[in-house]
Amino acid sequence: MKALRYHGNRDVRIETGLPEPVIKLPTDVLLAPKWCGICGSDLHEFLGGPSTCPVHPHPLTSEAIPVILGHEFSAVVLEVGPEVSGLKVGDKVCVESTQRCRKCANCLAGRTNCCIYGPAFYGLTGLGGGLAEKVVVPAEQVFKLPDDLPIEYGALVEPLSVAWHAVELSGIKPGMTALVLGSGPIGIATILCLQAKGAKTVIVSEPALARRKQAEEFAVDYAIDPSKEDAVARVKEIVGIEGVDRTYDCSGVQATFKASLTALAVGGIAMNIALWEKPTQYDPADVMMRERIIMGSVGYTGKDFAAVIDAIATGKMKNFGKMITARVPVEDIIEGGFNELINNKDKHIKIIATVAPELLA
Amino acid sequence: MKALRYHGNRDVRIETGLPEPVIKLPTDVLLAPKWCGICGSDLHEFLGGPSTCPVHPHPLTSEAIPVILGHEFSAVVLEVGPEVSGLKVGDKVCVESTQRCRKCANCLAGRTNCCIYGPAFYGLTGLGGGLAEKVVVPAEQVFKLPDDLPIEYGALVEPLSVAWHAVELSGIKPGMTALVLGSGPIGIATILCLQAKGAKTVIVSEPALARRKQAEEFAVDYAIDPSKEDAVARVKEIVGIEGVDRTYDCSGVQATFKASLTALAVGGIAMNIALWEKPTQYDPADVMMRERIIMGSVGYTGKDFAAVIDAIATGKMKNFGKMITARVPVEDIIEGGFNELINNKDKHIKIIATVAPELLA
Repeated sequence: MKALRYHGNRDVRIETGLPEPVIKLPTDVLLAPKWCGICGSDLHEFLGGPSTCPVHPHPLTSEAIPVILGHEFSAVVLEVGPEVSGLKVGDKVCVESTQRCRKCANCLAGRTNCCIYGPAFYGLTGLGGGLAEKVVVPAEQVFKLPDDLPIEYGALVEPLSVAWHAVELSGIKPGMTALVLGSGPIGIATILCLQAKGAKTVIVSEPALARRKQAEEFAVDYAIDPSKEDAVARVKEIVGIEGVDRTYDCSGVQATFKASLTALAVGGIAMNIALWEKPTQYDPADVMMRERIIMGSVGYTGKDFAAVIDAIATGKMKNFGKMITARVPVEDIIEGGFNELINNKDKHIKIIATVAPELLA
Repeated sequence: MKALRYHGNRDVRIETGLPEPVIKLPTDVLLAPKWCGICGSDLHEFLGGPSTCPVHPHPLTSEAIPVILGHEFSAVVLEVGPEVSGLKVGDKVCVESTQRCRKCANCLAGRTNCCIYGPAFYGLTGLGGGLAEKVVVPAEQVFKLPDDLPIEYGALVEPLSVAWHAVELSGIKPGMTALVLGSGPIGIATILCLQAKGAKTVIVSEPALARRKQAEEFAVDYAIDPSKEDAVARVKEIVGIEGVDRTYDCSGVQATFKASLTALAVGGIAMNIALWEKPTQYDPADVMMRERIIMGSVGYTGKDFAAVIDAIATGKMKNFGKMITARVPVEDIIEGGFNELINNKDKHIKIIATVAPELLA
């Protein structure tokens, strides 16, 4: 079988003749991946890894690099194990990619995204992924897509679930106000989830003009340029002196962290979604004097996938298809995917790739 | 009237002949303060202020220094305004000292501790305080003490309310585990509140031997010396690998902040009660990867005073009287109070002072 495998820093290879995965457990499902998004974490492995990709056998998969890439993918069901219900051959699906032990206190509490052996994902830590012709995953991690949804949109459910998990964890309620810091792919996904959940006013702060314009295309209520004006002062002009109910840091730098706190009303929640590269400075008075709250969100669970698909099916989640800014065959993923995202990052939200040549015909 | 007034840095004076306060509003109560605790914030004003004490007329009180000190006090009712109910002359009471505007969004939402004009307190920002022979406060801020409670214990309700507010805000539930970082006065008060609320295991981490011994006298379950062993590793030995449900930082330094995060289980809450002197370093991964939560607590509201008095009256709050480690006349407050706390800080939890000489007879 053909697949894209990660061998190490700046070393990813299209390979053929790889062994085909087969169903082993009665609850397994064999899938043919169709479209797969390129994630910031893929880029991070490419440029700076191996990081999440294991150098030594991973405790959850027993695999080490080379590993198959691709964790944001849609697929078609090829075969189901004898104990699988609710899925049949030919179904259009997407995959909740988190790998977990199912035994630790966190898994047992339903916080599979915080498994003590994680973070681990199909497409990063072994056992296959979405940039391969076939992959086997447990049925409980396979989510059926609406019949009329273009299958390329199925690749968006994963990044939307990252944002949904954070927005859900932050306890956003209809009518609340929110500030999103950074309108890269996860910032845009966060805006869409906030809109789906009925936030009254959604403001984005983003220094890059192209990205602010993208946010405006997704109907954000206000787009602030923090390089030109005091973002926190502007937020308070918009929503009132006490600040917003929720902030979402999708950038992860000192300035966005500070603003994510000081823009908040009393008792407000600053949710971190960004992956940080280094520690930052923190003034505890920013939290204490207004009894603000800092939270962090990592990944997603199956509940988030189900909720995103429901929001899509019921029309609460709108415009998400516009997140796709380019489509490439897996053979062109380095130039048309990784390098394009590195060199023209403000132009893109999500580039998706496929191992199935007929999809690009 | 006699009172202790703050004039500026290291300049507090016993003064006589000051004008006596009188009831102005029908909801006012005239009190004779009895015992008053010396707080860390009093020391902070003495050594490093003026900070909370206003140099310019304060928006809530129109007063500037010199101001009367003392915000942790018990008193006896001397006179009540015509619209006051539930209080009568001779009642033993304590005072919820927060000054507020009663009009801003935070006050209207019951978060009077976060009034947009605060922080402000009787005994720091004008309109009198507990180190004076008389003081007038609104009846809604006067709380009746149990009849059989020694009146000196009434001075402890305020610091206990600081801890109660934080412990309540942290959502502690019976059976949960908790780590308290630092067993100074607020650390001890936090231990007492956690015990009153049914925490299963309360652990304290405190480098000073004398303070660890004090914590043990208050029946803390474990007292760790973080200068001798890895406090977080020890906590996980005690409660299990995933860590504690709640941490309470009562120290406010880099090491306690880090431990307050890394000792926490998935979804656990790190509550900051400490007043910090400067910003600190923060690694967002410590929050994100375990979806931990950072919260801050400031002051208290009347609800906390009512809850602390109820916990005392019903016997849920135990041993609190032992917090008082010295009693001084207000005339000796600099030597026997401020300087004693500076020079022998590990020996003391709470030094209380009085303007009423008969109490020391």
